[in-house]
Amino acid sequence: MRIAATGDLPYYAVIFTSLRTEGDHGYGQMAEAMVEAASRQPGFLGVESAREELGITVSYWSSLEAIAAWKRDLDHQMAQRLGREQWYQAYKTRICKVERDYAFSRD
Amino acid sequence: MRIAATGDLPYYAVIFTSLRTEGDHGYGQMAEAMVEAASRQPGFLGVESAREELGITVSYWSSLEAIAAWKRDLDHQMAQRLGREQWYQAYKTRICKVERDYAFSRD
Repeated sequence: MRIAATGDLPYYAVIFTSLRTEGDHGYGQMAEAMVEAASRQPGFLGVESAREELGITVSYWSSLEAIAAWKRDLDHQMAQRLGREQWYQAYKTRICKVERDYAFSRD
Repeated sequence: MRIAATGDLPYYAVIFTSLRTEGDHGYGQMAEAMVEAASRQPGFLGVESAREELGITVSYWSSLEAIAAWKRDLDHQMAQRLGREQWYQAYKTRICKVERDYAFSRD
Protein backbone atom coordinates (compact mmCIF):
# COMPACT_ATOMS: atom_id res chain seq x y z
CA MET A 1 0.00 0.00 0.00
CA ARG A 2 1.23 3.49 -0.88
CA ILE A 3 0.48 7.01 0.22
CA ALA A 4 -2.54 8.05 -1.87
CA ALA A 5 -1.80 10.48 -4.73
CA THR A 6 -4.83 12.66 -4.13
CA GLY A 7 -4.12 15.60 -6.47
CA ASP A 8 -5.27 19.18 -6.16
CA LEU A 9 -7.17 20.74 -3.28
CA PRO A 10 -9.93 20.82 -2.26
CA TYR A 11 -10.95 17.21 -1.85
CA TYR A 12 -12.65 15.11 0.86
CA ALA A 13 -11.55 12.37 3.24
CA VAL A 14 -13.59 9.71 5.03
CA ILE A 15 -11.74 8.57 8.16
CA PHE A 16 -13.12 5.19 9.25
CA THR A 17 -11.68 4.04 12.60
CA SER A 18 -12.74 0.65 13.96
CA LEU A 19 -12.29 -1.99 16.60
CA ARG A 20 -12.88 -5.53 15.29
CA THR A 21 -14.69 -8.43 16.88
CA GLU A 22 -12.86 -11.77 17.28
CA GLY A 23 -12.58 -14.01 14.20
CA ASP A 24 -12.79 -13.27 10.48
CA HIS A 25 -16.45 -14.06 9.56
CA GLY A 26 -15.70 -13.27 5.90
CA TYR A 27 -14.29 -9.87 6.76
CA GLY A 28 -10.99 -10.11 4.84
CA GLN A 29 -12.66 -11.07 1.58
CA MET A 30 -15.39 -8.42 1.91
CA ALA A 31 -12.89 -5.70 2.86
CA GLU A 32 -10.91 -6.40 -0.31
CA ALA A 33 -14.06 -6.45 -2.43
CA MET A 34 -15.18 -3.11 -0.95
CA VAL A 35 -11.83 -1.41 -1.69
CA GLU A 36 -12.06 -2.76 -5.23
CA ALA A 37 -15.67 -1.53 -5.61
CA ALA A 38 -14.89 1.89 -4.08
CA SER A 39 -12.00 2.37 -6.47
CA ARG A 40 -14.41 2.01 -9.41
CA GLN A 41 -16.76 4.72 -8.06
CA PRO A 42 -16.86 8.16 -9.72
CA GLY A 43 -14.86 10.65 -7.66
CA PHE A 44 -12.71 8.07 -5.86
CA LEU A 45 -9.17 9.45 -5.39
CA GLY A 46 -7.43 6.82 -3.28
CA VAL A 47 -7.35 4.87 -0.03
CA GLU A 48 -4.90 4.30 2.80
CA SER A 49 -5.30 1.77 5.59
CA ALA A 50 -3.51 0.11 8.50
CA ARG A 51 -4.59 -2.02 11.44
CA GLU A 52 -3.02 -2.78 14.81
CA GLU A 53 -5.31 -2.72 17.85
CA LEU A 54 -7.26 -0.06 16.00
CA GLY A 55 -7.99 -0.14 12.28
CA ILE A 56 -7.85 3.10 10.32
CA THR A 57 -9.00 3.36 6.71
CA VAL A 58 -8.97 6.75 5.03
CA SER A 59 -10.61 7.04 1.62
CA TYR A 60 -10.32 10.17 -0.48
CA TRP A 61 -13.00 11.61 -2.74
CA SER A 62 -13.49 14.55 -5.09
CA SER A 63 -16.78 15.71 -3.54
CA LEU A 64 -19.39 15.11 -0.83
CA GLU A 65 -21.73 13.88 -3.57
CA ALA A 66 -19.26 11.13 -4.50
CA ILE A 67 -19.11 10.06 -0.82
CA ALA A 68 -22.91 10.04 -0.55
CA ALA A 69 -23.23 7.93 -3.73
CA TRP A 70 -20.74 5.36 -2.38
CA LYS A 71 -22.61 5.26 0.94
CA ARG A 72 -25.81 4.39 -1.00
CA ASP A 73 -24.17 1.68 -3.16
CA LEU A 74 -26.13 -1.56 -2.59
CA ASP A 75 -23.16 -3.90 -2.09
CA HIS A 76 -21.63 -1.34 0.23
CA GLN A 77 -24.88 -1.11 2.20
CA MET A 78 -24.84 -4.88 2.68
CA ALA A 79 -21.21 -4.66 3.92
CA GLN A 80 -22.20 -1.86 6.30
CA ARG A 81 -24.97 -4.02 7.72
CA LEU A 82 -22.64 -7.03 8.17
CA GLY A 83 -20.13 -4.68 9.77
CA ARG A 84 -22.61 -3.72 12.47
CA GLU A 85 -23.88 -7.29 12.89
CA GLN A 86 -20.58 -9.19 12.88
CA TRP A 87 -17.25 -7.50 12.22
CA TYR A 88 -17.05 -4.43 14.39
CA GLN A 89 -17.12 -3.95 18.12
CA ALA A 90 -17.24 -0.21 17.49
CA TYR A 91 -16.45 2.26 14.73
CA LYS A 92 -16.50 5.95 13.98
CA THR A 93 -16.80 7.55 10.56
CA ARG A 94 -15.69 11.13 10.02
CA ILE A 95 -16.38 13.08 6.83
CA CYS A 96 -13.75 15.77 6.29
CA LYS A 97 -12.85 18.53 3.87
CA VAL A 98 -9.11 18.52 3.22
CA GLU A 99 -8.10 22.15 3.41
CA ARG A 100 -4.30 21.84 3.08
CA ASP A 101 -1.77 19.14 2.40
CA TYR A 102 1.97 18.82 2.13
CA ALA A 103 4.28 15.97 1.30
CA PHE A 104 7.85 14.84 1.83
CA SER A 105 9.68 12.23 -0.17
CA ARG A 106 13.29 11.12 -0.02
CA ASP A 107 13.25 10.17 -3.73
CA MET B 1 -5.55 2.53 21.75
CA ARG B 2 -9.21 3.51 21.51
CA ILE B 3 -11.38 5.39 19.05
CA ALA B 4 -10.90 9.08 19.93
CA ALA B 5 -13.83 10.70 21.77
CA THR B 6 -13.71 13.94 19.81
CA GLY B 7 -16.89 15.65 20.98
CA ASP B 8 -19.03 18.15 19.12
CA LEU B 9 -18.62 19.33 15.55
CA PRO B 10 -16.90 21.18 14.06
CA TYR B 11 -13.35 20.11 14.83
CA TYR B 12 -10.20 19.46 12.81
CA ALA B 13 -8.16 16.40 11.90
CA VAL B 14 -4.53 16.06 10.85
CA ILE B 15 -4.04 12.88 8.82
CA PHE B 16 -0.35 11.95 8.81
CA THR B 17 0.44 9.03 6.49
CA SER B 18 4.00 7.74 6.33
CA LEU B 19 6.38 5.13 5.01
CA ARG B 20 9.27 4.41 7.40
CA THR B 21 12.93 3.88 6.67
CA GLU B 22 14.62 0.66 7.93
CA GLY B 23 15.62 0.52 11.63
CA ASP B 24 14.40 2.43 14.66
CA HIS B 25 16.91 5.30 15.06
CA GLY B 26 15.16 6.46 18.24
CA TYR B 27 11.80 6.63 16.47
CA GLY B 28 9.73 4.62 18.98
CA GLN B 29 10.79 6.72 21.94
CA MET B 30 10.32 10.01 20.10
CA ALA B 31 6.91 8.97 18.72
CA GLU B 32 5.68 8.24 22.26
CA ALA B 33 7.10 11.52 23.56
CA MET B 34 5.38 13.44 20.75
CA VAL B 35 1.96 11.87 21.46
CA GLU B 36 2.46 12.73 25.14
CA ALA B 37 3.46 16.32 24.28
CA ALA B 38 0.63 16.78 21.78
CA SER B 39 -1.91 15.60 24.35
CA ARG B 40 -0.85 18.44 26.66
CA GLN B 41 -1.38 21.10 23.94
CA PRO B 42 -4.39 23.43 24.13
CA GLY B 43 -7.08 22.28 21.75
CA PHE B 44 -5.92 18.65 21.51
CA LEU B 45 -8.94 16.31 21.29
CA GLY B 46 -7.41 12.89 20.72
CA VAL B 47 -5.25 10.69 18.50
CA GLU B 48 -5.63 7.40 16.64
CA SER B 49 -2.83 5.47 14.97
CA ALA B 50 -1.96 2.18 13.31
CA ARG B 51 0.95 0.92 11.25
CA GLU B 52 1.33 -1.95 8.79
CA GLU B 53 3.20 -1.24 5.56
CA LEU B 54 1.84 2.27 5.86
CA GLY B 55 1.58 4.21 9.09
CA ILE B 56 -1.49 6.36 9.68
CA THR B 57 -1.77 8.75 12.62
CA VAL B 58 -4.81 10.98 12.88
CA SER B 59 -4.78 13.70 15.54
CA TYR B 60 -7.87 15.76 16.34
CA TRP B 61 -7.93 19.43 17.31
CA SER B 62 -10.46 22.08 18.23
CA SER B 63 -9.18 24.69 15.73
CA LEU B 64 -6.68 25.43 12.98
CA GLU B 65 -4.89 27.75 15.44
CA ALA B 66 -4.32 24.82 17.83
CA ILE B 67 -2.81 22.80 14.93
CA ALA B 68 -0.57 25.73 13.93
CA ALA B 69 0.66 26.15 17.53
CA TRP B 70 1.54 22.46 17.76
CA LYS B 71 3.36 22.64 14.41
CA ARG B 72 5.50 25.50 15.85
CA ASP B 73 6.29 23.73 19.17
CA LEU B 74 10.11 23.52 19.45
CA ASP B 75 10.36 19.84 20.48
CA HIS B 76 7.90 18.97 17.72
CA GLN B 77 9.99 20.95 15.20
CA MET B 78 13.05 18.91 16.18
CA ALA B 79 11.05 15.70 15.71
CA GLN B 80 9.86 16.93 12.31
CA ARG B 81 13.47 17.55 11.25
CA LEU B 82 14.59 14.10 12.44
CA GLY B 83 11.62 12.63 10.62
CA ARG B 84 12.82 14.05 7.31
CA GLU B 85 16.47 13.18 8.00
CA GLN B 86 16.08 9.67 9.39
CA TRP B 87 12.72 8.09 10.02
CA TYR B 88 10.59 8.57 6.95
CA GLN B 89 11.00 7.47 3.39
CA ALA B 90 7.96 9.60 2.55
CA TYR B 91 5.02 11.16 4.28
CA LYS B 92 1.94 13.24 3.57
CA THR B 93 0.16 15.53 6.02
CA ARG B 94 -3.44 16.55 5.38
CA ILE B 95 -5.23 19.23 7.40
CA CYS B 96 -8.99 18.62 7.42
CA LYS B 97 -12.18 20.13 8.75
CA VAL B 98 -14.45 17.38 10.11
CA GLU B 99 -17.88 18.24 8.78
CA ARG B 100 -19.87 15.21 9.96
CA ASP B 101 -19.30 12.14 12.09
CA TYR B 102 -21.25 9.12 13.22
CA ALA B 103 -20.45 6.25 15.49
CA PHE B 104 -21.49 2.67 16.16
CA SER B 105 -20.87 0.71 19.30
CA ARG B 106 -22.01 -2.75 20.32
CA ASP B 107 -21.98 -1.76 24.01
